[in-house]
Amino acid sequence: MAYINLPENLPGIRGLMAFRPDTAQPLNELAEILLRNENSLSRGDRELIATYVSHLNDCFFCQNAHGGIAQHYLQCDMQFIDAIKADYEAMPISDKMKALLKIAASVQRGGKHVTPDQIERAKAAGATDMELHDTVMIAAFFCFCNRYVDGLGTDCPTDRQFYIDRGPMRAEEGYAHFDVRR
Amino acid sequence: MAYINLPENLPGIRGLMAFRPDTAQPLNELAEILLRNENSLSRGDRELIATYVSHLNDCFFCQNAHGGIAQHYLQCDMQFIDAIKADYEAMPISDKMKALLKIAASVQRGGKHVTPDQIERAKAAGATDMELHDTVMIAAFFCFCNRYVDGLGTDCPTDRQFYIDRGPMRAEEGYAHFDVRR
Repeated sequence: MAYINLPENLPGIRGLMAFRPDTAQPLNELAEILLRNENSLSRGDRELIATYVSHLNDCFFCQNAHGGIAQHYLQCDMQFIDAIKADYEAMPISDKMKALLKIAASVQRGGKHVTPDQIERAKAAGATDMELHDTVMIAAFFCFCNRYVDGLGTDCPTDRQFYIDRGPMRAEEGYAHFDVRR
Repeated sequence: MAYINLPENLPGIRGLMAFRPDTAQPLNELAEILLRNENSLSRGDRELIATYVSHLNDCFFCQNAHGGIAQHYLQCDMQFIDAIKADYEAMPISDKMKALLKIAASVQRGGKHVTPDQIERAKAAGATDMELHDTVMIAAFFCFCNRYVDGLGTDCPTDRQFYIDRGPMRAEEGYAHFDVRR
């Protein structure tokens, strides 16, 4: 049970958004820009960064909600997403994405863990300044969302199929006009 | 020097906001609601939570920028703010603020570090559900901002007097219509 009295039957961040809609609005606008707006990083790759950071922060809700969206965009299954969480360096993804996931992992530990070598590797693999910016910002943003969701002790379904089933709807609906009750 | 090519002479988060104004806008709207809008927690107390979390994340820019605003609102000096960072339990602040700073410190480590005992202590000291929500959200939000600022290797003045001098202006100006070039 959550630490504060939240509207019922709204899992994870959705109960918090219903509790405080005025903070939910800019939070969702930022999610829309970072994860869905026009970008040289695909929506799938951006959701993958979000999923990976949420995994490192051990946030069940976020890693599965965004994992479900990532696997929809990337046209893969949850086993592929899980294998990336376990060892992305060994997976068939681009060198650029590997370098960006490394930076995201550093951000998860703390901003100062990002090193010039990590940045150099990503630039050598073709990452632009905007892609570096967005990778750091997405990783940092999920360090926020994960703490928000777990720091208030929210509940959520433990069956991962729930999130897989909802991935396509969430992907289509987006974040900007997100209906927390759906 | 920052890891990406940012507009010059804009310290800390300000260079990032000039680099990507579209993400800056919802970020600043959220800061305005969390830190300045009507609330049963004073603006000073909210800036203190932001400052304390930024200190725990070792983010020089954020802890001094918000420390400068906190000391303006709280009508104290930077030594008082530093003493709170060092040992808030020993300081002459309310039992409720001590309990909320404890929760903020847990959020900084990770959402799951918040415990029912910490929540119970804050409720016993008079904290409302909204105050608990806002404390967790402010703490989590600064885990985002701190990582954003340091993860991209931004520069900023090292003289703390710079931030003390700017506190009153920042307090008056607020975040929603923040001019990053000032």
